[in-house]
Amino acid sequence: MSSQVLNGIAASDGIAIAKSYRLVDPDLSYSKTKITDVEAEVTRLSSALVRAKKAVTQIKANAVKTMGAHEAAVFDAHLEILSDPELIKQIVRLIRDQKMNAEAALTSVTNDYINLFENMADNPYMQGRSSDVKDITKRVMANLLGVTLPNPALIDHEVIIIAHDLTPSDTAQLDRRFVKGFITDVGGRTSHSAIMARTLEIPAVVGVQNATATIKTGDTVIVDGLHGRAVDAPNAKEIQSYQSAAADYAEQRIEWRRLKFAQSLTKDGVSHLITANIGTPDDLQAVIDNGADGIGLFRSEFLYMNTDDWPTEDQQFEAYRSVVAKLSDQPVVVRTMDIGGDKGLPYLQLPNEMNPFMGYRAIRISLTRKDIFRTQLRALIRASAFGNLWIMFPMIATLAEFRQAKQVYLEERQRLIDQGTSVGQIKIGIMVEVPAAAVLADQFAKEVDFMSIGTNDLIGYTMAADRTNERVSYLYQPYNPAILRLIKQVIDACHQEGKVAAMCGEMAGDQIAVPILVGMGLDEFSMSATSILKTRALFRRLDSTKMAELAQKAVEAETNDDVIRLVDETVF
Amino acid sequence: MSSQVLNGIAASDGIAIAKSYRLVDPDLSYSKTKITDVEAEVTRLSSALVRAKKAVTQIKANAVKTMGAHEAAVFDAHLEILSDPELIKQIVRLIRDQKMNAEAALTSVTNDYINLFENMADNPYMQGRSSDVKDITKRVMANLLGVTLPNPALIDHEVIIIAHDLTPSDTAQLDRRFVKGFITDVGGRTSHSAIMARTLEIPAVVGVQNATATIKTGDTVIVDGLHGRAVDAPNAKEIQSYQSAAADYAEQRIEWRRLKFAQSLTKDGVSHLITANIGTPDDLQAVIDNGADGIGLFRSEFLYMNTDDWPTEDQQFEAYRSVVAKLSDQPVVVRTMDIGGDKGLPYLQLPNEMNPFMGYRAIRISLTRKDIFRTQLRALIRASAFGNLWIMFPMIATLAEFRQAKQVYLEERQRLIDQGTSVGQIKIGIMVEVPAAAVLADQFAKEVDFMSIGTNDLIGYTMAADRTNERVSYLYQPYNPAILRLIKQVIDACHQEGKVAAMCGEMAGDQIAVPILVGMGLDEFSMSATSILKTRALFRRLDSTKMAELAQKAVEAETNDDVIRLVDETVF
Repeated sequence: MSSQVLNGIAASDGIAIAKSYRLVDPDLSYSKTKITDVEAEVTRLSSALVRAKKAVTQIKANAVKTMGAHEAAVFDAHLEILSDPELIKQIVRLIRDQKMNAEAALTSVTNDYINLFENMADNPYMQGRSSDVKDITKRVMANLLGVTLPNPALIDHEVIIIAHDLTPSDTAQLDRRFVKGFITDVGGRTSHSAIMARTLEIPAVVGVQNATATIKTGDTVIVDGLHGRAVDAPNAKEIQSYQSAAADYAEQRIEWRRLKFAQSLTKDGVSHLITANIGTPDDLQAVIDNGADGIGLFRSEFLYMNTDDWPTEDQQFEAYRSVVAKLSDQPVVVRTMDIGGDKGLPYLQLPNEMNPFMGYRAIRISLTRKDIFRTQLRALIRASAFGNLWIMFPMIATLAEFRQAKQVYLEERQRLIDQGTSVGQIKIGIMVEVPAAAVLADQFAKEVDFMSIGTNDLIGYTMAADRTNERVSYLYQPYNPAILRLIKQVIDACHQEGKVAAMCGEMAGDQIAVPILVGMGLDEFSMSATSILKTRALFRRLDSTKMAELAQKAVEAETNDDVIRLVDETVF
Repeated sequence: MSSQVLNGIAASDGIAIAKSYRLVDPDLSYSKTKITDVEAEVTRLSSALVRAKKAVTQIKANAVKTMGAHEAAVFDAHLEILSDPELIKQIVRLIRDQKMNAEAALTSVTNDYINLFENMADNPYMQGRSSDVKDITKRVMANLLGVTLPNPALIDHEVIIIAHDLTPSDTAQLDRRFVKGFITDVGGRTSHSAIMARTLEIPAVVGVQNATATIKTGDTVIVDGLHGRAVDAPNAKEIQSYQSAAADYAEQRIEWRRLKFAQSLTKDGVSHLITANIGTPDDLQAVIDNGADGIGLFRSEFLYMNTDDWPTEDQQFEAYRSVVAKLSDQPVVVRTMDIGGDKGLPYLQLPNEMNPFMGYRAIRISLTRKDIFRTQLRALIRASAFGNLWIMFPMIATLAEFRQAKQVYLEERQRLIDQGTSVGQIKIGIMVEVPAAAVLADQFAKEVDFMSIGTNDLIGYTMAADRTNERVSYLYQPYNPAILRLIKQVIDACHQEGKVAAMCGEMAGDQIAVPILVGMGLDEFSMSATSILKTRALFRRLDSTKMAELAQKAVEAETNDDVIRLVDETVF
């Protein structure tokens, strides 16, 4: 067998060589038949259920070890379903009364449940139940058919995962010790697989298209996340060459580690901030380990998502305080609740929307649910006394929205002061992700303290393309001159008014984008903690005057590809 | 009872006074009960079915008269369902076997069908069947419960329709002779109700919020579509005053009619084109009656939507030829297939998308289904020999897409020329509705012959708000300075390169927007045929130098409301 090179998108740095593990569903199709031996069929069902229960129990034990009890709780729900007497009774009844084979009876009954749950479209909890039932059905079906379901939780040797795409529930089951890389058919730099790989600091190549079709189970594969390339069944020479590249990269990483306490300076000594994006106070350690200059995006959603009811003011206060106190004088930018779009809450009935990304979300919810908004603002204002806290409103589209939100903030601030609560200096800013805010940046700059460009959504709206949609993901073009122009407009507007220009989208840590952003004079780059040192190292190679020329050429370019070429020629 | 003034959004001009007709569903809730007299229950069901059939037959006859046989065909489907022996058998079985009351049995059986159809999510035809079954269930249920369903098809006297919102199927049933106006709780200037009202040339006020809660059946109501106001139970003085305003308006309309053959000139003699948006060749008469200067948007979707399979090249050719030939030397801008988003086709499997507006649609489909695209282009190129045909690509986001689409056009054009087919001069342009295209307008202007701004979608993406979503429709702000800046950028870019700048969204006929657009020097205003003469009359009151000053102030303004005030002060 000769080796085969597969090209894709470089989604997470590094090089790994290991055996492949295909996380691909096997064929679970079956025929509906009339059975004759009813008792044998019921026994077949029972034993499939027992085997499924055993597998889930094992996965759960594994998940508790690698992820903690909280994340593993989903498997309790799965075990419950597998033991649900009502569900089993219904399947057995179809086998007995209608002489259905177990496969058909299982499908018929679980489909009813799935439909029922899915029709409760307003209830995200019930929709979650529906995917639990689907998962379980798949598992029992595989046992009935005698086919093996991939069981990533049981991986006990080093592997590279090959998949069409990786869902959050797939990655939740992976034991981080053994997974050395990802290769997927679909996705881009901002897909879940890509972000997860960067968090785990393992190399990944996504959007390879024919990965699952080409790579067989147990093939040796190379994943080259630096160049977006994979090699299936490499020959000895290829292995050697990539091993040496991997060693170089490891050395480079050691270099980067030396920059942990260094300032974030360009070659010509211009200073920028490199800050981290975090989701929970638990992420703080990685922030500190990677020598961040602060936190540029503290997503407050986790506070809302991991509970059964609205978090109280005190609960929120404690979470914010713990983070700002730890960072002492470094800035901590907290984004107010960004629920809606694709993020729901079990206790908030959100409308079923045709286009949730263009719907009722983030500040739009906060401004109509001022009770919730005021609680969050009070918690933030109280926490501001303990460090350097900034507040950022997400999804601002109009000045009127910003003024309204700021008004609520000022009211709560005054109320707390009147009550004798001590409050700190707080900067108030907006996330620029709606194109209208970028276009009107000069007006916004007069009224805000800072702006932080959220490139993921800004690119999505500006290109009118949902980046999670495979068919149009080619339009997620961070270097498209249209995007670069909007970014430049925001940075220039901020500087015109002496305000801070930041970025907290994926682009801020992107090696093609960083030189351009340095050239535009972006003040603060906020990114995954794992990208910080690499970006700080890149800064040291960049001359800001030259980068300003590059940035000017980039906004005058015609296409995304033209800009990539331009940066490659100028910087690398 | 004293009169009550209700404020909303002026959606269609004119003033009407008539009795209200509430198009609001009655309470159709019921209790599930065990029945004792099975035969009586079956008889109750049968007679409800008979009455429902009678009503549908009558509606259908009415619809054939007012709308034509084609549009009335949906009622055949309803009659078929009402006579479906399998469906009736299942309901009767539940009554007999489980002693269910007819209401519960009906719901149980039809829900199964609805779920079944709705789960075939990839099949728009089946989804259409689901709304048929829902409609029928509602009708039979009303007969069982003895409540009266509003039956707009049977209206035989002048009324003003009061509704929460009007769906296409609601308006399809209305007899245009009797409906004098609309008042709805929700919606904006671009909602279906508003567009329909303008097409019917009847006054409408939408987004009144408490219309259905306030206005009782048979109340006299005034709808003032000029000022976005409704009056419930007006007193004699109010009636008199509105009658006089209605007379003034009627006079004004007579003035407008005089402009049918006039040029579209401003007060200081600057000429612009006022063209029409059309959906089918049938709309041509209204275009000619209203003295349009051409067709600025010929939506080609109707060719794809009203058939069971892809329309052939000859079918398309005939449709395009008939329109361009009739308009002789006036321009006819044909937009290539704009399917996807919220527009499906029975014979095209489109993916189920989380955000269809940001998904696989329009040119994105054409560029991956080049077979379909080439057929359409060949039909267009052949038709170009018979008049002044322009081709416009929808949803262009990047230069690469435009270049690809133009390349396909050039190939087909050459092929036809090689075959000896005669072809005309064709202008090739893009619809600017994706923000990226507006931001990069200077680059596009070098390569296209014209650009036409599609404001409906451009506003939606730029504000990141789906205008069909009630909760965020407040963000559909055509006069937001961010939108005006993008529009100005497109117009300036076109003029820089000597290309035509057009607009074919709702905004082109909007009386607040027109003065600004004249000030920006927009070359072509394309709108509903019914808005043409009114806009031509408005032009004659506008001085282009003054409007240029107004436009400059508008792009420097802060909010949508500021711009409205500015135009009001300057023009009205």
